[in-house]
Amino acid sequence: MELQQLIQIPPIDTSAAAQARARQEQLTKPQGSLGRLEELSIQIAGITGNHRPQLTHKTIVVMAGDHGVVAQGVSAFPQEVTPQMVANFLNGGAAINVLARHVGARVVVVDMGIAADMSEFVGLVHKKIQPGTNDFTQGPAMTREQAVQAILAGAEVVEEELARGLDVLGTGEMGIGNTTPATAIAAILTGKDPTEIVGPGTGLDEAGVRHKAEVIRRGIELNQPQANDPLDVLSKVGGFEIAGLVGAMLAAAHHRRPVVVDGFISTAAAMIALSLAPSLHPYLIAAHRSRERGHDAMLSWLQLNPLLDLDMRLGEGSGAALAIGLADAACKLLDEMATFAEAAVAGKK
Amino acid sequence: MELQQLIQIPPIDTSAAAQARARQEQLTKPQGSLGRLEELSIQIAGITGNHRPQLTHKTIVVMAGDHGVVAQGVSAFPQEVTPQMVANFLNGGAAINVLARHVGARVVVVDMGIAADMSEFVGLVHKKIQPGTNDFTQGPAMTREQAVQAILAGAEVVEEELARGLDVLGTGEMGIGNTTPATAIAAILTGKDPTEIVGPGTGLDEAGVRHKAEVIRRGIELNQPQANDPLDVLSKVGGFEIAGLVGAMLAAAHHRRPVVVDGFISTAAAMIALSLAPSLHPYLIAAHRSRERGHDAMLSWLQLNPLLDLDMRLGEGSGAALAIGLADAACKLLDEMATFAEAAVAGKK
Repeated sequence: MELQQLIQIPPIDTSAAAQARARQEQLTKPQGSLGRLEELSIQIAGITGNHRPQLTHKTIVVMAGDHGVVAQGVSAFPQEVTPQMVANFLNGGAAINVLARHVGARVVVVDMGIAADMSEFVGLVHKKIQPGTNDFTQGPAMTREQAVQAILAGAEVVEEELARGLDVLGTGEMGIGNTTPATAIAAILTGKDPTEIVGPGTGLDEAGVRHKAEVIRRGIELNQPQANDPLDVLSKVGGFEIAGLVGAMLAAAHHRRPVVVDGFISTAAAMIALSLAPSLHPYLIAAHRSRERGHDAMLSWLQLNPLLDLDMRLGEGSGAALAIGLADAACKLLDEMATFAEAAVAGKK
Repeated sequence: MELQQLIQIPPIDTSAAAQARARQEQLTKPQGSLGRLEELSIQIAGITGNHRPQLTHKTIVVMAGDHGVVAQGVSAFPQEVTPQMVANFLNGGAAINVLARHVGARVVVVDMGIAADMSEFVGLVHKKIQPGTNDFTQGPAMTREQAVQAILAGAEVVEEELARGLDVLGTGEMGIGNTTPATAIAAILTGKDPTEIVGPGTGLDEAGVRHKAEVIRRGIELNQPQANDPLDVLSKVGGFEIAGLVGAMLAAAHHRRPVVVDGFISTAAAMIALSLAPSLHPYLIAAHRSRERGHDAMLSWLQLNPLLDLDMRLGEGSGAALAIGLADAACKLLDEMATFAEAAVAGKK
């Protein structure tokens, strides 16, 4: 698919949403008493065009990539952890594996640009654009062509998964250093100074956080990304896994599937994706509020209210997995609860 | 068991909790990055005395009872809805059934004091103290002896379930009008005026809410419950299902099982239970912040921070079911994730 086609997102099916809302009002509970779960089920009805949607096939796509900017000392962990954690994902030992099993989702792990030879890894989806981005303090992280290529590769992953059944997409990622490009994207799109939204990532101390903000400031100053040109922002300060997530989100929405956006990195990808395709908005479900400092500002910019707030800051799709569990519960409530008439329960006086 | 025995709650196993905390620090993630899920797993390790606890058998006890005070017009729904919804629970058509199936919990429905003949209901646990409490605007809701009897009956339910396997208890309830006694309990124990914490329950309008506050104020003035005597508070303005939940919570903690407290009504029961047995506190897990107005003040009084905030206000144990899902996920993360050594992942620089 071409990018111009990918960003064609169909409008929500307002008739299916209205039918779902009408059914919620007939179910055996005070009206509105299931709160955000009711709204979530109605949103998913509108997305899918099914007034009693079922999230049978749940897929969490974990995009992995490395970042040239780690040469500037912006992460508490060494770069070799990216391929090591990918091996952990493939062996089922990481948090995302446990949480995906818990909610009945499958995990699809994608090499979008890991700085290591991953050719021998069994079960990995190979979409490597380049072994790591370029250091954005020295020039653009990637070319504009590579950004488009990575978006289309991410979309391809989702299209391949659709063939296996995919009723809901959860986004996840792994990439040592990737809170730095995500913060840079957030700073450019929200117009905030990096010092206002930068955080410790996997565990920087205060001096490390100040240095990280300075690295981001230098990258933005050198590359002059244009906030009104999302491909320019993505290519100059982004990452291959972030670009892959942009494509995955667009492809899921293009095919009328709900997109559960994980934490800090995934939210940066959602900001780029929404800038490319404003009609993506009703397809987005914010999983959780990350503890990483800038996340709130990013969610506000997206006008999304996250479902969970558990002080998590892991990434991998861990928050998305839990939120997929809630979305599944919301759809089951809409579908399986008895109506007042069916259960012969008296209504409000 | 006698009440004096029931309120003997063992201290937390600090050694198991410390072992769980040490394991969390070795798992393949930045330290603390799973946020409240890490703390939850450590809390449950301390409760159960198992440093890798598993919540295999999940039980949600739904206590049902009616309230004489509904004669004062404090509920938007008629009293006949209590037995009708109990029938719905037994048929599997209510929200709690859907959510319990979703998280793999069983639902145990108990008649603590429904104002209808329930003797023919198959699958119902029969512990009826009296068909509905007395109207507390005319005198005490129940005698002190009935309050003790109801607490012990609630404890018996949990002891019977322990024999079938019970690794975590979720609390739930049904009783038309029961936000009124719950608000009365909260007002007495927090020292707040009923007008500060009263809410619409299942759907009163503004005038109805004002009237409900006035009914609660009259009940408190007439009965003069003593805030430092939890049995006095419970008997004068409480309910049989609330008393049953008090007993269920105490029994679960007595046997070292975590107690997941649902919303507004269950929280009022937790306040009574904690007043009877201060050592109950570390066993309590607040499931969610209810949309019902006074709930925040009750959670603050209990010094509990709820896991979820989804604008729910249904009761039945619906919030507890979702929180049990999170507790299960937290325990699985602690148990199933690979360590840095097992996965050969490099640590922090």
